[in-house]
Amino acid sequence: MSQPSSLSFLAVKCGRVEEIKTQEENSSKPMSHVHGIDSELLQRLVNDALIWSSLHGLLVGDKNVQRSGKVPGVGMVHAPFALLPISFPESHWRQACELAPIFNELADRVSLDGNFLQHSLSRTKKVDVFTSRLLDIHSKMLEIGKKEDIRLGLLRSDYMLDEKTKLLLQIELNTISSSFPGLSCLVSDLHRSLLNQYKEPLGLDSRRIPGNSAVSQFAEALAKAWTEYNNPRAVVMFVVQPAERNMYDQHWLSTILKERHDVTTIRKTLAEIDEQAELLPDGTLLVGGQAIAVIYFRAGYAPTDYPSESEWKARLLMEQSSAVKCPSISYHLAGTKKIQQELAKPNVLERFLENKDDIAKVRKCFSGLWSLDDSIIVKDAIEKPEFYVMKPQREGGGNNIYGDDVRKTLLRLQEERTEEDAAYILMQRIFPTITPTFLMRDGICHKDHAVSELGIYGAYLRNKDNVIMNEECGYLMRTKVSSSNEGGVAAGFAVLDSLYLA
Amino acid sequence: MSQPSSLSFLAVKCGRVEEIKTQEENSSKPMSHVHGIDSELLQRLVNDALIWSSLHGLLVGDKNVQRSGKVPGVGMVHAPFALLPISFPESHWRQACELAPIFNELADRVSLDGNFLQHSLSRTKKVDVFTSRLLDIHSKMLEIGKKEDIRLGLLRSDYMLDEKTKLLLQIELNTISSSFPGLSCLVSDLHRSLLNQYKEPLGLDSRRIPGNSAVSQFAEALAKAWTEYNNPRAVVMFVVQPAERNMYDQHWLSTILKERHDVTTIRKTLAEIDEQAELLPDGTLLVGGQAIAVIYFRAGYAPTDYPSESEWKARLLMEQSSAVKCPSISYHLAGTKKIQQELAKPNVLERFLENKDDIAKVRKCFSGLWSLDDSIIVKDAIEKPEFYVMKPQREGGGNNIYGDDVRKTLLRLQEERTEEDAAYILMQRIFPTITPTFLMRDGICHKDHAVSELGIYGAYLRNKDNVIMNEECGYLMRTKVSSSNEGGVAAGFAVLDSLYLA
Repeated sequence: MSQPSSLSFLAVKCGRVEEIKTQEENSSKPMSHVHGIDSELLQRLVNDALIWSSLHGLLVGDKNVQRSGKVPGVGMVHAPFALLPISFPESHWRQACELAPIFNELADRVSLDGNFLQHSLSRTKKVDVFTSRLLDIHSKMLEIGKKEDIRLGLLRSDYMLDEKTKLLLQIELNTISSSFPGLSCLVSDLHRSLLNQYKEPLGLDSRRIPGNSAVSQFAEALAKAWTEYNNPRAVVMFVVQPAERNMYDQHWLSTILKERHDVTTIRKTLAEIDEQAELLPDGTLLVGGQAIAVIYFRAGYAPTDYPSESEWKARLLMEQSSAVKCPSISYHLAGTKKIQQELAKPNVLERFLENKDDIAKVRKCFSGLWSLDDSIIVKDAIEKPEFYVMKPQREGGGNNIYGDDVRKTLLRLQEERTEEDAAYILMQRIFPTITPTFLMRDGICHKDHAVSELGIYGAYLRNKDNVIMNEECGYLMRTKVSSSNEGGVAAGFAVLDSLYLA
Repeated sequence: MSQPSSLSFLAVKCGRVEEIKTQEENSSKPMSHVHGIDSELLQRLVNDALIWSSLHGLLVGDKNVQRSGKVPGVGMVHAPFALLPISFPESHWRQACELAPIFNELADRVSLDGNFLQHSLSRTKKVDVFTSRLLDIHSKMLEIGKKEDIRLGLLRSDYMLDEKTKLLLQIELNTISSSFPGLSCLVSDLHRSLLNQYKEPLGLDSRRIPGNSAVSQFAEALAKAWTEYNNPRAVVMFVVQPAERNMYDQHWLSTILKERHDVTTIRKTLAEIDEQAELLPDGTLLVGGQAIAVIYFRAGYAPTDYPSESEWKARLLMEQSSAVKCPSISYHLAGTKKIQQELAKPNVLERFLENKDDIAKVRKCFSGLWSLDDSIIVKDAIEKPEFYVMKPQREGGGNNIYGDDVRKTLLRLQEERTEEDAAYILMQRIFPTITPTFLMRDGICHKDHAVSELGIYGAYLRNKDNVIMNEECGYLMRTKVSSSNEGGVAAGFAVLDSLYLA
């Protein structure tokens, strides 16, 4: 296995698969002697892991093959993954699991408070065109008094474990396009298989990798939402990007939806929906003549998903329909960073949750979150930028600002005195444990120092009268190269991983 | 789905995956209206089949990706397959299955008759360097009185159904490197899945696709041979080509061998074996210090597998060892075309089989087979070349001679009066039914006229005292484009298929 001159990472976050090149330095270290693994054993693990991935559908489209995001079955490569599970304290894992149903409920409650969403995002609206367009649709729905009786949330709450404080701190709550329910389950299976096969030399117990049923529970939630919609001839529509190299993650979900629940999926881009969709007077959404029961978004979360007015028209039309939206525009907005920061303010959680224990649990996982009109914090961040992260409303971890750039950006914003400060929030910098890790990409094993982020999936479904499903649904562990120039906890460059309860 | 300017086929035969370009004309017909399938249904079938293949490991290495034959998990593409199973008469299917244990036994008996092998191949030896080298090893084993007490055959007998005579006729008996036990099972599963999912529009019954357990039965046979060898620390060695784009077929076999039987596989090329192998005085074969219980050849069947003396040294060393060889040199020779032709002569089968029913069954599936010293047949073939195929001893269907070339070659050989005629046999030309078929390659569906070849796997294992296993083990259906310029039954260019019992 030769070392390439530069490495290609997949930025795996909320269904987006971006290409970013990083320098080779981080991976040119010898691959052996992590976890006391000798190079011969490592070679066997690597080989077996690659074979396992190929035979079990742990795949993505290869960026080097042009059709790989369009046509299934061509240009496939194993998904990037960590060779072994990452050690994670059992207590923190349980804490994260317990939080899932609470966050499910919180997101639903927040989504119902239209005024809270509009008011909290009013300054963001002025400086962020994308959020502004979402708010416009939201306003229209408020005006016509649109009610979502059947509400489906397929969420993922992401956490890091701060090494110094030993606190589990939330990074973000994804309310749209929570990706990797399919591939994350496979990585757990892969790791269990390797631990079983190499029981003696590794000395690890595969039973300490928690079971992961994200894909079957998400499929179940979609199926139940489909049942609630109550039109046996209607289908589930996956809203997808025109090219999607992470398509196999999505195909796993639709395959299980079909096999276990006999519910058919169609896949459409926003542009295709604009072309083919029609809204019947009773609210039924037809796409290509086919009634849609549930709209499941795996696109539409980023400005680049709306290159023209067509896509916005499609989004509005879907929102006006009676189809179950996963997510509705309200759910989408409830997952914005600004709302996350608003919820962290004193006495805000209390507006949405009654149970004091629940409130305490949620608050405990909030890291420090501030808007830029908090002058004391801004002053502190200018003085000690290494303890802060600046996050723009814009989705995608690659846009975060770290280190000295925090100071520079804050000073520039103070000088310019525009409204641009409303486009950012400040967040406490989390310092997770850095662990030497074997990262597999493109058939090559790299040893590197890495940090991990734990996502817990949650599914929430209710109708007018009852909560039908409110469950924790398994996990996504992502392990990221911790390159010093990106400041410790660089976002984005990740491989799929699982966790080993310690 | 666009039509490419030229098509790339995979010549799938005994583990070899070759690239051959053919002209576009055959595939530029519209894809609809075969089996009464409209283009929308076809599109859905194609898409679902491609997704199924990706998620279930029905894969090969992509010839366009350099590392795809070396590193698992990179440069993958779905294996070429027929979209739907081919109709096949149940009676002929049963006939082929019944023949499997008889051919298993026949191959074993023939392998034991060293003089028969040497004598039958004596003229071939003079003109075919490859067969000559095999015979040299065989002679050495005869000289030292080498006995194979544990004998393992993983065979595949290939047939075509002659349309006019309605006879099931044998094409060849593969005694080395019978490929596709893994992928052939997956194609049956794929077709069953499609027939179930599209039950109503297709109107086909998935239960009419016979179950295919080739891979699990081959794994079982390898495991039982490993048990017979009786060294718990020894492993099974797959002898592989340095680059093998059909590696996933092999990986399925080793995965099941490990998962169900806890038997470990190592993979070595002939060159690596020459470098790393050592023969202990007791006959134990060590490769890289590891004792080998069973040698399973997925390379070594073609002259190109022996580019230097190293590979021949490796083959000889293995043959001298006590490891179970699948196949031994005797089994390998028993599968040559010349032996096939010798067995078809009057009273030859009777030397190896006692049961008259068995002999009659075997003889019934023999097509006309003649050596070139049969002057009456040669005269007839010159006059009516369209009814004959000339087959060189050289492995690989691509070397066969059809049509007017038969006449030209025979006339040239008569004129030259060399020994070269011994390098060929003449075989009755079989004319199977030509069916319009959807062939999937590289993500693209082509409609074309195709013929099919049915392979029946067989596993045979015995020790000094007893037959341990003698079973029919499932099937490989291959469907080939029938292009007129290659003369009806062109060999080689195939997609994987399954059969639908009619």
